[in-house]
Amino acid sequence: MPYIYRIRTHASLDRLESLIEQRLQPGADKRRIDRRIWDLFGERWAVMFTDLAGFSRNVAQYGIVHFLQTIFESQRVLVPCIEDHDGILLKTEGDSMLIIFRRVDNAARCAVDMQRRLKEYNRDRPEEEKIELCLGIGYGDVLRIGDDDVFGAEVNAASKLGEDTAGPWDILVTENVYQRIRDEPHYGFEPIDYSPPGAKAAYRLVVRGKVPPGERGS
Amino acid sequence: MPYIYRIRTHASLDRLESLIEQRLQPGADKRRIDRRIWDLFGERWAVMFTDLAGFSRNVAQYGIVHFLQTIFESQRVLVPCIEDHDGILLKTEGDSMLIIFRRVDNAARCAVDMQRRLKEYNRDRPEEEKIELCLGIGYGDVLRIGDDDVFGAEVNAASKLGEDTAGPWDILVTENVYQRIRDEPHYGFEPIDYSPPGAKAAYRLVVRGKVPPGERGS
Repeated sequence: MPYIYRIRTHASLDRLESLIEQRLQPGADKRRIDRRIWDLFGERWAVMFTDLAGFSRNVAQYGIVHFLQTIFESQRVLVPCIEDHDGILLKTEGDSMLIIFRRVDNAARCAVDMQRRLKEYNRDRPEEEKIELCLGIGYGDVLRIGDDDVFGAEVNAASKLGEDTAGPWDILVTENVYQRIRDEPHYGFEPIDYSPPGAKAAYRLVVRGKVPPGERGS
Repeated sequence: MPYIYRIRTHASLDRLESLIEQRLQPGADKRRIDRRIWDLFGERWAVMFTDLAGFSRNVAQYGIVHFLQTIFESQRVLVPCIEDHDGILLKTEGDSMLIIFRRVDNAARCAVDMQRRLKEYNRDRPEEEKIELCLGIGYGDVLRIGDDDVFGAEVNAASKLGEDTAGPWDILVTENVYQRIRDEPHYGFEPIDYSPPGAKAAYRLVVRGKVPPGERGS
């Protein structure tokens, strides 16, 4: 990595640590420090968590190499899809991925496209090789720290929705996401009976008809 | 990173991908391919997942910078502790860490020491700055892929125990861990009413008296 880039990255992380240090002092003006941290690190992103369904069951039956194979296969299908919709894959953990998008409509379109590509992948495959995807999406102000971390209420909400709440083929979105794309004609939304911590409400996105491809730069 | 190291790493990942490719062919001899993958990537490790307790509640009340501060503070206390007990921090996600240890007794000793250091850290701090740690530990054969990924039944079990099942100050361990350290005089074990997928049973580790420091290389 270029030297100048490394210096810059470290400089900003050092700044963050020193601000947090100040914040921990007795009598610190936390509101002012928080505003400075948000000024330095605050960005607005759509945040998506993906997770594969039915995995614990499959590991017991087919072993861990099968598990690894399914993760690799899902990445082979999904990573090009993420790139097509201008998403940035920040990290993977086990069978789960954390992806961010500048535009919330790109995140929704990517989610629908991911499900479509995996359903196509599954066609004609034996039962144990089918891949089922669960998705959670949030949108809002987050702190982006270094190259692969984001923190924020919507990050936590999206993680809870994608990794814990969503069943196979569910695309669950927070209130923030719903408010931004509720008027798009090809999506419907069903409120779900659960509000993740950090979000007011959550909805299941249902596709009505064919979602048109995204227009870049629009 | 040195060029030769990069070549070697990629060579082994390429090998893995080609073996998985073969495994997906109709009529593949999966048992033979799995044995080759285990020969190449199988290692025996203790696997620890850490998680901070009560976080969703705190984020709503104190905001995301407080959340970030707590994560940074927990890492400031825990990372030196991990190093003292010869653990390797593979990755962090939000308030959770994935750590591996060659020796299961080092993992257990590290867990006890982490809780001790955080309790010390918490003393005299205001309620909202206290950090509560949940821990899950597994032990067994895992596939170690690249520099920051491990896959295996005990990885999944430890993740479930540390991130979902454990309450504040719980150290939960799988049957495999229990069998290896059950005879150490300073630990007690209470069976818990839950078996994570991938493990036969799980136990809560309870410290009886003072745990002696580890002996390196013993």
